[in-house]
Amino acid sequence: MRQTTTLPAPSIPDNTDGDRLDTATATGAIGYRLRRAQLSVFQGFLAFFEEFKLRPAEYTVLVLIEANPGRKQTEIAEALGIKRANFVTLVHGLEERKLVERVPSAQDKRANALHLTRAGEAFLHTAQARHAALEAETVARLGGPAARDQLLALLDRLI
Amino acid sequence: MRQTTTLPAPSIPDNTDGDRLDTATATGAIGYRLRRAQLSVFQGFLAFFEEFKLRPAEYTVLVLIEANPGRKQTEIAEALGIKRANFVTLVHGLEERKLVERVPSAQDKRANALHLTRAGEAFLHTAQARHAALEAETVARLGGPAARDQLLALLDRLI
Repeated sequence: MRQTTTLPAPSIPDNTDGDRLDTATATGAIGYRLRRAQLSVFQGFLAFFEEFKLRPAEYTVLVLIEANPGRKQTEIAEALGIKRANFVTLVHGLEERKLVERVPSAQDKRANALHLTRAGEAFLHTAQARHAALEAETVARLGGPAARDQLLALLDRLI
Repeated sequence: MRQTTTLPAPSIPDNTDGDRLDTATATGAIGYRLRRAQLSVFQGFLAFFEEFKLRPAEYTVLVLIEANPGRKQTEIAEALGIKRANFVTLVHGLEERKLVERVPSAQDKRANALHLTRAGEAFLHTAQARHAALEAETVARLGGPAARDQLLALLDRLI
């Protein structure tokens, strides 16, 4: 009765995502489950970014500009670790969407200071509310704030 | 005293890995920490794969061939969800290292059955011992089997 038509363990019958068995064997039970959980949480945030037609870096830039209005492009780029050329392209895209505006800096004529437009502020606040709701959903799936704190404490032991 | 030379919150002063601030803002506290923990655990396994000069898929194939000696290439490839052409290349590499051998199948003359060589078995057992030690180290970092079970239960709520 051995080895007739189906592969015995360690095969996993429902190999629907292609690398499931591979990842499970290769990175152990903890690594595998961390990856699955992370992908699941990221999935929710990917849907969020699609909804608002934003890339994660663009969202972070909007958050940072609002918290630091009037800062120079180079300062925001450095704080984010984004290369200058990439940052210029990113800001240009946000300007075209009328979310961000560059105004000549008062202190430094050659530099541009970044501000959110009124529309940019409204857009960001809507996005932030949706973003906060997503994090709250994740906490609810875990079982509440105490479970979240427990998870974060366990994860910190691995970092 | 506002906004002189340093950016206030939400900037993170030690932005050493480039996308740290970005990931933290973009995917929330839980997503961010899951990603960091996952990368940290995977780092250990990456070092393992380098040590044994294996790719994760190669390791899984060796494990699967040992558990299912004499199976056809197509069966192992299917169980892993690896494309036939990629699988042939992978097995060829393991054959050149004298870890795997293909022998004509008894039932089907056109098919090749896969076996580990003696050297392949010894190699795999050494690798598996090292692999198990890695998982044990991860459990120890978490605080023991009870903490591991707690973490896995929490992660399952997210999956």
